[in-house]
Amino acid sequence: MSAAILLISCPDRKGITASITNFIYQNNGNIEHADQHIDSETNTFFMRIAWSLKGFNISPQDIPSEFMSLAKKFDMHWNLYFSTHMPKVAVFVSRHLHCFYDLLLKFKQNYFKGKLSLVVSNCKEVEDIAGNYGINFLYSPKTKGNKKEAEQRELEILKKNEIELLVLARYMQIFSPEFAEFFSNRIINIHHSFLPAFAGGSPYRQAYERGVKIIGATSHYVTEELDSGPIIEQDITRVSHRDSLADLKIEGKELERVVLSRAVRWHLERKILVYGNKTVVFD
Amino acid sequence: MSAAILLISCPDRKGITASITNFIYQNNGNIEHADQHIDSETNTFFMRIAWSLKGFNISPQDIPSEFMSLAKKFDMHWNLYFSTHMPKVAVFVSRHLHCFYDLLLKFKQNYFKGKLSLVVSNCKEVEDIAGNYGINFLYSPKTKGNKKEAEQRELEILKKNEIELLVLARYMQIFSPEFAEFFSNRIINIHHSFLPAFAGGSPYRQAYERGVKIIGATSHYVTEELDSGPIIEQDITRVSHRDSLADLKIEGKELERVVLSRAVRWHLERKILVYGNKTVVFD
Amino acid sequence: MSAAILLISCPDRKGITASITNFIYQNNGNIEHADQHIDSETNTFFMRIAWSLKGFNISPQDIPSEFMSLAKKFDMHWNLYFSTHMPKVAVFVSRHLHCFYDLLLKFKQNYFKGKLSLVVSNCKEVEDIAGNYGINFLYSPKTKGNKKEAEQRELEILKKNEIELLVLARYMQIFSPEFAEFFSNRIINIHHSFLPAFAGGSPYRQAYERGVKIIGATSHYVTEELDSGPIIEQDITRVSHRDSLADLKIEGKELERVVLSRAVRWHLERKILVYGNKTVVFD
Amino acid sequence: MSAAILLISCPDRKGITASITNFIYQNNGNIEHADQHIDSETNTFFMRIAWSLKGFNISPQDIPSEFMSLAKKFDMHWNLYFSTHMPKVAVFVSRHLHCFYDLLLKFKQNYFKGKLSLVVSNCKEVEDIAGNYGINFLYSPKTKGNKKEAEQRELEILKKNEIELLVLARYMQIFSPEFAEFFSNRIINIHHSFLPAFAGGSPYRQAYERGVKIIGATSHYVTEELDSGPIIEQDITRVSHRDSLADLKIEGKELERVVLSRAVRWHLERKILVYGNKTVVFD
Repeated sequence: MSAAILLISCPDRKGITASITNFIYQNNGNIEHADQHIDSETNTFFMRIAWSLKGFNISPQDIPSEFMSLAKKFDMHWNLYFSTHMPKVAVFVSRHLHCFYDLLLKFKQNYFKGKLSLVVSNCKEVEDIAGNYGINFLYSPKTKGNKKEAEQRELEILKKNEIELLVLARYMQIFSPEFAEFFSNRIINIHHSFLPAFAGGSPYRQAYERGVKIIGATSHYVTEELDSGPIIEQDITRVSHRDSLADLKIEGKELERVVLSRAVRWHLERKILVYGNKTVVFD
Repeated sequence: MSAAILLISCPDRKGITASITNFIYQNNGNIEHADQHIDSETNTFFMRIAWSLKGFNISPQDIPSEFMSLAKKFDMHWNLYFSTHMPKVAVFVSRHLHCFYDLLLKFKQNYFKGKLSLVVSNCKEVEDIAGNYGINFLYSPKTKGNKKEAEQRELEILKKNEIELLVLARYMQIFSPEFAEFFSNRIINIHHSFLPAFAGGSPYRQAYERGVKIIGATSHYVTEELDSGPIIEQDITRVSHRDSLADLKIEGKELERVVLSRAVRWHLERKILVYGNKTVVFD
Repeated sequence: MSAAILLISCPDRKGITASITNFIYQNNGNIEHADQHIDSETNTFFMRIAWSLKGFNISPQDIPSEFMSLAKKFDMHWNLYFSTHMPKVAVFVSRHLHCFYDLLLKFKQNYFKGKLSLVVSNCKEVEDIAGNYGINFLYSPKTKGNKKEAEQRELEILKKNEIELLVLARYMQIFSPEFAEFFSNRIINIHHSFLPAFAGGSPYRQAYERGVKIIGATSHYVTEELDSGPIIEQDITRVSHRDSLADLKIEGKELERVVLSRAVRWHLERKILVYGNKTVVFD
Repeated sequence: MSAAILLISCPDRKGITASITNFIYQNNGNIEHADQHIDSETNTFFMRIAWSLKGFNISPQDIPSEFMSLAKKFDMHWNLYFSTHMPKVAVFVSRHLHCFYDLLLKFKQNYFKGKLSLVVSNCKEVEDIAGNYGINFLYSPKTKGNKKEAEQRELEILKKNEIELLVLARYMQIFSPEFAEFFSNRIINIHHSFLPAFAGGSPYRQAYERGVKIIGATSHYVTEELDSGPIIEQDITRVSHRDSLADLKIEGKELERVVLSRAVRWHLERKILVYGNKTVVFD
């Protein structure tokens, strides 16, 4: 059964919720989920509202134009999604494959509301795995010299495959600012630390040397600045002096899988709204 | 600044949110918080909505009668609260004082939206502490023989002091079904285990003997049946074979304080809605 | 490089550690890990001690006889392992495959100090997967009528394959007491609840209906009594009223994988010592 | 019953544990706790060993000289403590009193193996509280101008009171390098963030602005460099977009109390060994 999902943000004032819910009610929609949040520091209103299209008086393609006047009145930033649409997803991965395998199996078991359509890697081993699962593969090794061209080629193939979300499953390359900007809020990365602690390279090594008692993982949208984009999810696990650097990596892998997988799931379920450098994750 | 808070549950159908938010909007109210939830198993709609009374067209005492027709139309179960009202609270405690001290200091520092007005205990040491803080004290030792009379006396004093919430801060007595029923959803207990595991007496001893790797604490509303009421909050901490029974108790005390304190805070902020034997805790 | 690992338990008295470490030192062994624990309730001494066999004066096959007099003196229960020995492991699985896939990939990546040699299932889909990874497969459907024979056949094949550890990766069959007894402390099960809460069937359904705020998973050794064997590891995740039963299952799967995988790893690294109905997990 | 506790670190080589445990055994000591750890990166051996002095052949005051030759042989850095000795503790606090109250009540209930002998604060309100509990108080306001003199005076009074441990219970002053050096590994601070994230001022504000999904607290020994000393303990709690800055502070206070209290307890139980900029916390 199809549903429409609206993600809205606008300056807070009287009557927003009443107007939106009236719009749905008067057109015979049944609300399935509604969650709102007011950021009192910036006086901003956020909402996720989903309603069944069964019996709804407006056809899906006409909803935007019908909703427009309301959106203008309240100066809304808004996005409309349909639950029947399955976005195409590309996974980028280097030589650490644990997150990649996890995503692969979960896509296969229809865990995500999207379709894994493309795998991009500089690792030949990955090609075989993608092949076994019947997923398109792009071999894209990057060097200092060819980075611009390689990105250009990736961009073409991503467009050709109509990719809507890029997932970096331990991908050890940094995109150019133009690339990151083009896919703004549509590239999810997993960083193997509790950001903002231990940004950059070798976070487990950094954590080990600092002697922390807890390690973490962070999934976030990629922005121009390394490891500084809006945080989607974080989780942690306890460690002790007994844990070697190798132990941190082993325990950390479990975290990475879970924290990346949650972010991908929430993004595809249209539960994440980015504002400034933060996220609202509607649950 | 005063706000009105509505906690609502009713069968789910079209138009509920639109009707409620219209009611507030048309009377010039500004929504400060709104959160709703639909339990799809039972087709039940739940809502917490809070709005500023500044400039609201209906006076506080008239809101119930004005809201009545809407409530009837949707067959609502509803409660209206005002943020300016500070409910009076009684704490019941036996000989373990850590939760009691925690509540005492937090009430003193205005951490809770309520007033600690009465302390009930079978422990004379508690009387002095309550005295130091200028809080009414009822010495109420209970034996098998005097239980009924003791409860009767407690009931009178609770009524006289206009107590609206009872908090059992490690209180080692069981109320009669009549008493529990009278204060239905208004008695909060802390149980020192991860319920439903280790209900009843000596939960740390039970946990120790079972060899669990994690211990917990649970705050819940008291019902007739021991340790079986609606759960409000739970939290846990890791233990290992190195932890003696005494260690479990030490670590557990920290949990108990936090888990009880959260429940009391949320109750007084009118964030908890009980349905069946569960709670919706709006955050 | 090979190491010897001793797991020891005995009544506590003076001189145990001195005697054991002297035995190693005087034979030119270098201790790589030593951890001991005294259970003061039962006055029991536990130890895990590992030392390098490089330059050790006693050959591996002679260590037991050389150690015997010491062991007798202190009335030890002891087991000797060698780090070079890779135990053969069988995984039993029914139709939920997430734990199975996780173990499969981890065995493939040499994450465990053992070898996955056999997969047993009543699910034909599993046969193909095992086949792809070149692992022996036993199709073993069980009904009320054939249970005894089926177990007998499993036992034969387990023996023939020299299986030392059985891992139940969401295996929905109960072994006979004789079978469980035969593989005492060598069958690891994952139960999808925070034991002892929600033992038996449908633990997520039970948790959902009880309205808990935290769900868990428990790995334990299998004993005759269902879900009552020595607990190896537990972990939890937070849930709320917003989580449907399906959500609990989704989040729970992540827990199950991690909690089962840790137990298998620790068992194969000889870090677990069972006493009574508890475990000492040396870290 | 009195016990001796040794904390030892030295280069790892064969025979250390055998030698130490022989020393105790041959002098008729009964080991109550022994835990060792080898840091394989630096090839360093760490040990905590505690034994009963009941029937021990060497008198407490002679243990150091008797142990000396062994210590020299292995090039040990070592400290000897006696469980009967109750170190005197000073608590430093500014205007946030939650950690202070928590420590006060716990010292009163004999939770720590030490004696709270002195409270130092720039806050007059604290004087009354200390007075009620019969604890010495030093009023020590600091300005840029008087800092050196104030510290000098504090040092005198700390010496006069024979203070062995300083606990900074949300103390908003930075000690001079000389002062920190003098009390090296004897000043415990609580920082209200998950270090190394959000060092310095206003960590909750920083966390709020970064949009993290988890907040933390860290207890550590104070060194010359701000918030960079050896970490003793960390813990965390989940937050969401719904949590205002004020909410972070409320939840954070609970963490701070627990994380500081654990550090103080472990220090006084002689469970912490500092090496480089890390800690081994024997459990």
